[in-house]
Formats: sequence, structure tokens, C-alpha cells
Amino acid sequence: MLKNAIYAQSGGVTSVINASAFGVINACRDMKDRIGTLYAAYNGILGILHEDLIDTANESDADIKALRYTPGGAFGSCRYKLESLEKNRKEYERLIEVFSAYNIEYFFYNGGNDSADTCLKVSLIANELGYPIKAIHIPKTIDNDLVITDNCPGFGSVAKYVATSIKEAGFDLASMCATSTKVFIMEVMGRNAGWIAASSALASTDSSMPPHIILFPELVFDEGKFLSIVEQTVKSYGYCVIVTSEGIKNNAGELLSASGISDAFGHAQLGGVASLLAEMVHKKLKYKCHYAIADYLQRSARHIAARVDVEQAIAVGDAGVKLALSGHNAIMPYIKRVTQEPYSWIIDYAKLEDVANYERFMPRSFINKNGFHITEECRNYLAPLIQGEDHPPYIDGLPNYIKLKNVKVNKKLPAFTSTS
Amino acid sequence: MLKNAIYAQSGGVTSVINASAFGVINACRDMKDRIGTLYAAYNGILGILHEDLIDTANESDADIKALRYTPGGAFGSCRYKLESLEKNRKEYERLIEVFSAYNIEYFFYNGGNDSADTCLKVSLIANELGYPIKAIHIPKTIDNDLVITDNCPGFGSVAKYVATSIKEAGFDLASMCATSTKVFIMEVMGRNAGWIAASSALASTDSSMPPHIILFPELVFDEGKFLSIVEQTVKSYGYCVIVTSEGIKNNAGELLSASGISDAFGHAQLGGVASLLAEMVHKKLKYKCHYAIADYLQRSARHIAARVDVEQAIAVGDAGVKLALSGHNAIMPYIKRVTQEPYSWIIDYAKLEDVANYERFMPRSFINKNGFHITEECRNYLAPLIQGEDHPPYIDGLPNYIKLKNVKVNKKLPAFTSTS
Repeated sequence: MLKNAIYAQSGGVTSVINASAFGVINACRDMKDRIGTLYAAYNGILGILHEDLIDTANESDADIKALRYTPGGAFGSCRYKLESLEKNRKEYERLIEVFSAYNIEYFFYNGGNDSADTCLKVSLIANELGYPIKAIHIPKTIDNDLVITDNCPGFGSVAKYVATSIKEAGFDLASMCATSTKVFIMEVMGRNAGWIAASSALASTDSSMPPHIILFPELVFDEGKFLSIVEQTVKSYGYCVIVTSEGIKNNAGELLSASGISDAFGHAQLGGVASLLAEMVHKKLKYKCHYAIADYLQRSARHIAARVDVEQAIAVGDAGVKLALSGHNAIMPYIKRVTQEPYSWIIDYAKLEDVANYERFMPRSFINKNGFHITEECRNYLAPLIQGEDHPPYIDGLPNYIKLKNVKVNKKLPAFTSTS
Repeated sequence: MLKNAIYAQSGGVTSVINASAFGVINACRDMKDRIGTLYAAYNGILGILHEDLIDTANESDADIKALRYTPGGAFGSCRYKLESLEKNRKEYERLIEVFSAYNIEYFFYNGGNDSADTCLKVSLIANELGYPIKAIHIPKTIDNDLVITDNCPGFGSVAKYVATSIKEAGFDLASMCATSTKVFIMEVMGRNAGWIAASSALASTDSSMPPHIILFPELVFDEGKFLSIVEQTVKSYGYCVIVTSEGIKNNAGELLSASGISDAFGHAQLGGVASLLAEMVHKKLKYKCHYAIADYLQRSARHIAARVDVEQAIAVGDAGVKLALSGHNAIMPYIKRVTQEPYSWIIDYAKLEDVANYERFMPRSFINKNGFHITEECRNYLAPLIQGEDHPPYIDGLPNYIKLKNVKVNKKLPAFTSTS
């Protein structure tokens, strides 16, 4: 009897995580003689714990193909971090119990740092319990902060969205700045790593072009230096475009967004470092300011995905299945840059113990001397990752994204109650 | 000797105002035997007052064609409202002085309400002074608030951007809401008219689909009713997506964004009604909230322009030239809907006195009974306006927008100092 497989999505979704799902499902369908049923977990790892499983065979080939260009997590994702093996061994044992009930040998877990760690632990406990598993981590994160891989699926499309948006807003500012807004600030994601903010620099090929200033969470925010560069930029070019990571910090290591601003109720404001910076510029330099907060728009903007990102997302999914079938366990397929110009890449794989629980920040050599822009080295790294367009099909003027049927299978096991 | 023409952009730019510029310039180039030089004013009406003029003949056909897909204002726009004829007659006389020095008979003024009024006054004072002018207003505004015209060039593309963004963010929320954000709020432009907010509804074809709630500036914001619908929506669907106009007001007629929130410096926060609503939902209903503020991104997002909007923007520019050449003065070419299904339209024209200083709000029949969504009548009106894609060309992963040479002509007149 053929062994079965299960696929689950984890953590914040991206505009191309479903392209990885497509890669996994498509590869499994191609390997019908070696893999039985491919289940998908409903709402990520919670779907496995609670036996909320979907038989992907109920989805048509056409609908599965549509995953290639549909943002969000088609089977549901979740923010749920399993505790350590020592603290809540029961949850890990439950995963194995469900795997066993469904004759699962292949576990494809599509996520970032946390899920790499979970995936590793699943393989460890399965080994301990003598359960044969091939646990494969499929990388995904807009934050681009996984180690070993040259870049993370999901990042290139956010980068393209951010660089395009800043280029467009820059055209707007340039045409209006004589009598209107002088300073525009765009806040992008990135709590600890400045990769997304850095990518906006691709819109700027000389120092006169927006963005003029980029604020990274890796460096301490220096108000005086910042304001002086804003002023200098407005004096030189008539306007100043700024991109800030949501996670910039003061010299006490506190998030700027959590310090200082409070609302009528006396609460620290949710997010909103952009509004704080706008107020600072307005108060100190008297310039008219505007700001945008992209928030979820940036990680769901499938309409402006990078083709190379879509292709890599599919490739890691596809490779995950092939690596599992060739007997690999506790590994992550990753993207390796082979040549810079023309850009080319292959899929290699790494041990999960070398990936889980490490975070990759912007190296100092990627940030320029004054700390407010990127270096050529960084530009060379980023430039290939936003290449190519992959327009979704449109219907009635809007992208024609798919909703799967997601019919759940009947449960076989008693309900699970976590008792950590 | 052939008479010359001048083209100027006014007020907030759109992603297709340059498509109207293309329409004007292209038509003038086609009419070389009837129109001499086509000047463009640098930074709008200020460029005429200060004789900062560009000879568009210096721009290649290829660059002019690229205006079709370039956002922002290619010659610069401005926020500068001429005072009334009574208050500052000198400014109007200066316009005529510049027209006369450059042998201008055709004045194409591309803007919204204010510029329609300016255009009308220019024609009046020219008439008084016995100067022959054909003053043509080319409509443009993302706010969609000009009267007589079925819709305004610039609006359809913002509508497409907003509906696409909300559709995409909705996919993100739906896949994460079980364990993460339950409420997402997107703030869009619209101080007095809710057209842009309304357009987000095109992403929702049944009540389960985002956006679930739309807040219009035409209605008084009712906190109790709002919170109760948010709660009900989260209970029914697991999450709630909200689109708010920046201009929503309380029952005292005050902007919500200016009431209540202040920062560490004690200033009312710039913009940011979305953060206020997020805090309200978080505090009262305990849901995790996220919010996005699109700001200038929405009006510069040429990468997701509606093809019909681009075509109409070109058509009003083209028609403006032809109407001027056939002797019309003090008029505005506008878009007339001919058939609903299939959607078809023609260009007609209206007298400026019937357009200037009127504002078109969402009629009550376009807002549903509870005040938090649109009606079918509104949907039928909006749906055709976002149709079709018009992807710009891309280079190195980013839209390949054009910057014109914008070489200024040598001044002939003494400097102008406004002495209002």
C-alpha cells in the first residue's frame, strides 16, 4: 500500500506561498505511483493536531494550477508555535498519532524560522518513536531572514511591490512638491531585518531618485542625523522620499513605534512608526508630510509578483517532494545563486539543524556608510530577485484568484486537547 | 501665422493624467497645419504666471507615447488656487499677458473642480479684454466628484487599485484569522465624497466576501452601530475587512481623524483615521487589528491602471483639442455612458459654468440601508469603470516610466510678482 503525504502552511502568508503548494501538489500528482493521498492541513499545524484534514484529490487540476497565482494561504495558515519537546511532548506525539492514522510518510511544512524548528522536532520525535517520516521544510517568508538559502520565496514579490510603489509615489511627489507635500514616508514590514526596506532602493539608480532615505531595524535610529539628511534632500531635490522598516529602534533598543505616541485612550498606538516620523519632520522642519502604511497589502500583492519569485516558490515545493521520495529527512530545499549576470539559480538542500533558529540580518556591508541607504553590493544581491512579471488572469477588472473547495475528511481519532 | 496652444496640469495628480497629456499633445501634433507650438506650463498655472514654459516639440514621439503609461504629472502640477477675479484681477491679467506674448489661442487646463473654475474665469476675462481664447477644461480627479460627466478620468484606476488591494488583503486575512488578525482596516482618499471607498465593494460579490464594511464621508459615523457590525461579521465569517474614507465625520461634523488622537508632542495626528478605528475595535471588542493607509500609493499606482480609464483620459485630451479647433470655449469634454451592458461611452461636452464649483457626492441610493455598504445600483455604476488591464512596460523588474526633458523656453516678459 502506498504511503501518504501531508502539506501544511505556517505563519504569515505571502503572495507566492500557494505557488509552493502548487509545486508540492503537482509533484505528488506526477508521482501517483509512489505517493498515495496528499492531505492538506486546514489552518496549518492546528489542522494536524485537530485532524482537520483536506484531501487535495478533490481539487481539480485547473484549480490547483490557479494556486500558482493566488495569494494568501489556500488551506489556511496559523500563528501557533509548538512548545519545546520537553514542555509539551504531547503535541508532538499527537502529530505522530495523526500521521500514523493516515499512513503518512511525507510531511511538507511550508514556513519560516519557527516552522523549520517544528519540522526538525517532528523528525526527532518520530525517530525516537520509531515512526518512519520524511519531514521536509519548504522555505517561505517575506522577511528574507532564513539562513543558508540565497533568498526566501515570498521576498522577491514584496520587494517588487515596495520598489514599484516607491517609484510611483516618487513620480507623484516630484510633480507636486513645488507647492504641496515635500516629504513622503512609506512604512514596510520587517521587525528585525531590513531586507524589505532595502529593496525599495531598487527604484533609485542615482542619489536624486527616490527613495532618498531608508531606515533599517539593524541600526539605531539617530533623529538628528535623520532630520539633517531630510532637510538636505529637500533642499537639493525639492522633496524627500523615505522608506522605514516598522521595526526601527532608538538607542535604548525600544521600538520607535511603541515609544512616545499614544492615543486618546492612553494606549500606545498600534504600529505606525510612519506617523511618528511624519510628525517629527513636520514639527522640526515644518515640511508638509504624507505617509503610507502598506501592512498586509505588501505581502498579498500577487498582482505585482516577481516571476522569479513565483518560479522559485514552485521549485522549492517541487524539490521538496523529490527529496522526500529519494529518502531525505529533516532537510530544507533552498535557493542557491549560481551566476550573477545573467542571474541563474539552482535548488540545493540543507539540514534543518543548520537552518532552524538562526536569523539572517542585513550585513553591515549592505548598508552604506551614513546608514541611510544600501551599497552596490546590496543592490547586486537584490536586483535579480524582482525580475520578471507574472500577471494573474483578470475577470471583471480584478485578479481571478481561486478559492479551493477544502472539503474535510471524516475524523478517525478522538478529539485532541492540548494540556501544556 | 499659426496660433499656439498651452497645456497645464492642476491639483493632485493621478496615474492617468499624463494619458490626457498624451491625448492633447498627440492631437496637436496631428493638427500641425492648424496649431503652431504646443507649450506645457511647468508646475501648472504657476508656470504660466511665471513664464516657466516648456516647448513640447523638444520631446520625441516615443517619449510622448510613454506618457500614456507614466504616473504623476509629467510637467509638474501645483496646488495653487487663483483668487476671485475681484480679489486678484492682476493674476488673470498676467495669464492673458503671457498668452499674448506667446500667441496662445488654445488653453488646455487639466484638473478638477478648482481648475474648472479658473478655466472659466480665464475665458471671462479674456472676453472682457477682447483677447481671443479657447479655454478648455480637461477633467481629472481621483475623487470622481465632478458633475455632468459620468465619471472622472483618474478614478477608475484608483478604484481598480483599491478593489484589487482589498481582494488580496482579504485572501490574507481569511487564511490567518483563526489564530491571528481578525480585523483589517484600509484607509483610502476621499475628504467629502466616498467614491473611492465605495469602489472597494467591487471585490465583494456576496456578503461573506471582503470588504464587509465601508465607511463613507457622506454619512455620520456611528460608533455603536459600527462596532456591532464588526462583531457580528467576525462571528459570522471569522474576520472583518473594513474600508474607510479618510474624511469620515462624527455627528458634530468633525473629522474623526482630527478628533481624539494626539501624539507625544500634543499635536493632532496627521491623517490616520484607520489607526483610530483600529484602536477603537481593539479596545472595545478585543480583536487583533491591522491597518493600511494607501495614501499616495493609490493615486500613483499606474501598474494596476484600468484600461478603460486610460482610454477615457486620452479621449478627453484628444477631444479637448478638437473642440477648441472647432471654436468651442469655456467648455469641458466629458464622459457619457451610452449603454450599460456591454458598457459603452462617448465624449460629449458641457459648459464650464455648469461644471465649476459643483461637487458630486455619493447619492443616498448608492449606499445601502444600514449605511455600511453599497447598493446594486452603485455596483452597476462602478463595475465598468475598472475594466481592462493596461500593464506598463517593465525594465529590470520595474515599470519603465518616462521622465521628459522639460527644457524651458527663454523668458520674454518681466518677472511677475503676485500682489494680492
